[in-house]
Amino acid sequence: MVSSLNSWFTIPEDSDFSIYNLPFGIYSDENVKHHVCSAIGDYIIDLYELESADVFDINRSVFDKQFLNDFIELGKPITNKVREKLQNLLCDSNSVLKTNESLYNHVFKKQSAVKMLMPVKVGDYTDFYSSIDHATNVGTMFRDPANALLPNWKHLPVGYHGRASSICVSGHSFHRPQGQQKPADADLPVYGLSKLLDIELETAFIIGKSTEMGDSITTANAQEHIFGMVLFNDWSARDIQTWEYVPLGPFLAKNFASTISPWVVTIEALEPFRVKGYEQEPKLLPYLQYQGNKNIDINLEVYLTPQGGTENKICTSNYKYMYYTMEQQLAHHTVNGCNVNVGDMMASGTISGPQAHEYGSMLELTWRGTKPIKLNDGTERKFVNDNDTITIKGFCQKDEVRVGFGECTATLLPAK
Amino acid sequence: MVSSLNSWFTIPEDSDFSIYNLPFGIYSDENVKHHVCSAIGDYIIDLYELESADVFDINRSVFDKQFLNDFIELGKPITNKVREKLQNLLCDSNSVLKTNESLYNHVFKKQSAVKMLMPVKVGDYTDFYSSIDHATNVGTMFRDPANALLPNWKHLPVGYHGRASSICVSGHSFHRPQGQQKPADADLPVYGLSKLLDIELETAFIIGKSTEMGDSITTANAQEHIFGMVLFNDWSARDIQTWEYVPLGPFLAKNFASTISPWVVTIEALEPFRVKGYEQEPKLLPYLQYQGNKNIDINLEVYLTPQGGTENKICTSNYKYMYYTMEQQLAHHTVNGCNVNVGDMMASGTISGPQAHEYGSMLELTWRGTKPIKLNDGTERKFVNDNDTITIKGFCQKDEVRVGFGECTATLLPAK
Repeated sequence: MVSSLNSWFTIPEDSDFSIYNLPFGIYSDENVKHHVCSAIGDYIIDLYELESADVFDINRSVFDKQFLNDFIELGKPITNKVREKLQNLLCDSNSVLKTNESLYNHVFKKQSAVKMLMPVKVGDYTDFYSSIDHATNVGTMFRDPANALLPNWKHLPVGYHGRASSICVSGHSFHRPQGQQKPADADLPVYGLSKLLDIELETAFIIGKSTEMGDSITTANAQEHIFGMVLFNDWSARDIQTWEYVPLGPFLAKNFASTISPWVVTIEALEPFRVKGYEQEPKLLPYLQYQGNKNIDINLEVYLTPQGGTENKICTSNYKYMYYTMEQQLAHHTVNGCNVNVGDMMASGTISGPQAHEYGSMLELTWRGTKPIKLNDGTERKFVNDNDTITIKGFCQKDEVRVGFGECTATLLPAK
Repeated sequence: MVSSLNSWFTIPEDSDFSIYNLPFGIYSDENVKHHVCSAIGDYIIDLYELESADVFDINRSVFDKQFLNDFIELGKPITNKVREKLQNLLCDSNSVLKTNESLYNHVFKKQSAVKMLMPVKVGDYTDFYSSIDHATNVGTMFRDPANALLPNWKHLPVGYHGRASSICVSGHSFHRPQGQQKPADADLPVYGLSKLLDIELETAFIIGKSTEMGDSITTANAQEHIFGMVLFNDWSARDIQTWEYVPLGPFLAKNFASTISPWVVTIEALEPFRVKGYEQEPKLLPYLQYQGNKNIDINLEVYLTPQGGTENKICTSNYKYMYYTMEQQLAHHTVNGCNVNVGDMMASGTISGPQAHEYGSMLELTWRGTKPIKLNDGTERKFVNDNDTITIKGFCQKDEVRVGFGECTATLLPAK
């Protein structure tokens, strides 16, 4: 990637999908069941149609798939070449993509006219807990402000396995979950609607290269195994969670629904936005140490839109607040020989910053409901109401270069 | 299924694979990449070859698959009919299977001459914690004997998500995991081999019918969604677990390897062995209540075989000791609308009985290493040693009728 690129294609200045981005996704429309695509400005780029012109020199059937997994399986030497070639085609005014009108017309489609599908088939999904501000806030609220972080927290990136089946692509809706809870003042648990339905502002990375059982990934070679990133909302039912999670962790409080954004932004596109990681004290064991700038400056925002209303920005955070990097998470996850597969998804955990408006969950933003959020329609929220829509946005910006994720949005419907 | 069946095929009297069983699996040999098969006596029955005679009246390509998932997707009305038809063919002395010599020779193969493969592609894997004796033992050892069970334990079947990628079929071996631990007398964690490598005697059930997000399964209709059962060893690194598991549950302590038996014994084959469930006090919330005999009398055994040595039975337990039934586990898992898919696997949690020889883990059998197990070669074990092989066996027996699971076996190799 060169530092300054000009495309002959019209790209709005504030577009997430600049010439520097070129993420990958899967779309459908009335004529297409599922094709691999990229994005530029307000358009998608149908890579299956584009490959009818043999520009990438690969078997185009890999672009006619329900998921990106087979494409990712080709390996970075090939997938990166596809992305770079696409960039060249979009910058070269004499490229076949510009000069062949029929090709042009088949390849570009308005994003607003297509439906984005789940980008990957997630084999295993892991959720980490790697934001120090989030872990401190939760520990302060539920345990002990003086010992908010548990003894292991600064020694390893705490993580747990989540449910892959209920991960949905942005644009879906789901019903408020029900289940067993125990109100603080009750002797016995009750069955009922979750009243404390929360969001968790997260990102996730998609595994780009598999390993065998018994193999470990080091922090140094982790990037080879990271294909790209998405935005992620780890919906959480706090009342169900409080009662169920001891001693084996969250279960029904999380597995009713999760939302991911449709575009996988490659780790290569995010490279220019790398920043220094968190100062980690005490020093970590050698297998978790790393060299270089491994955090990423990704602006993150959360919006709440009531039914028929307008959007309210309720949180502004940043991925750079993460205590542990993706490289450390992956090294930890595989230090015991656990194998990973292409398409596996590993989420960050709630990303909170140090300031109160940077908290990545309503639990923290409203401090357990004690400081409700005032919306622009005059109503208040302690947690998510029925028919509220939550949208996460994310983008990197450095000088003139912008690389964004689009949106990760979902609507909470009333209980079934 | 009739109460007394006679097959013309020779079946050893103590065979797990009686005419009443007819489980499903996937095998390969030098000529076959992967075919669906059943088992009878010492033989497998190649269902793809058998269907060349059109006995089941279904598209035989469903038997030429890497996993059982597509077959299971056909639904119980069809899969049960296949099993019943197979039973008829094996009982009818005039059946084409007996009279057509060429067919016979293609269909039956010695079990010892084929390799059994992973029976299903596991989408999501959940592990429960539903044996009251196990939970009590662990709570007594690690927390407080007076309050061994946590407050939620008798109100819901505690469960958590596990890693699907590292589930292997019986017969594999794997390396002793390494990772971060904190010795009790140390100020800081250390990196090293897991020294407390343990087994967990479990069974698991395979989902036979999918649901949509938002749907719940009741205890009354749960059996429709349960295809069958397998034996399961949930290998656990206790030293890694102790340090990592607070507050989000076991992670690296479990995800390095798990072992399942290759034959899925249908829930219909297990029906004759249903027994009364555990007396559940306090009374459960209505969504967890059920009618009828929903426990199952399955004899379970664990054997330890040192390298070059002979087998030592180290545990004799029974599935009937489970406090929560599979129907309750499934109703709980989906009460919040969590969707399940064909091939998902839900494990019981360690199955311990009330007596000391019935404990389903070495942690309990040796009471945290304080009472080592003496082996027939004169050595002792507190936990699993390098090159030890662990084998779980399971079978139901009632009068003359025996239905068994075969073996679930794996060998621990030294660290890589």
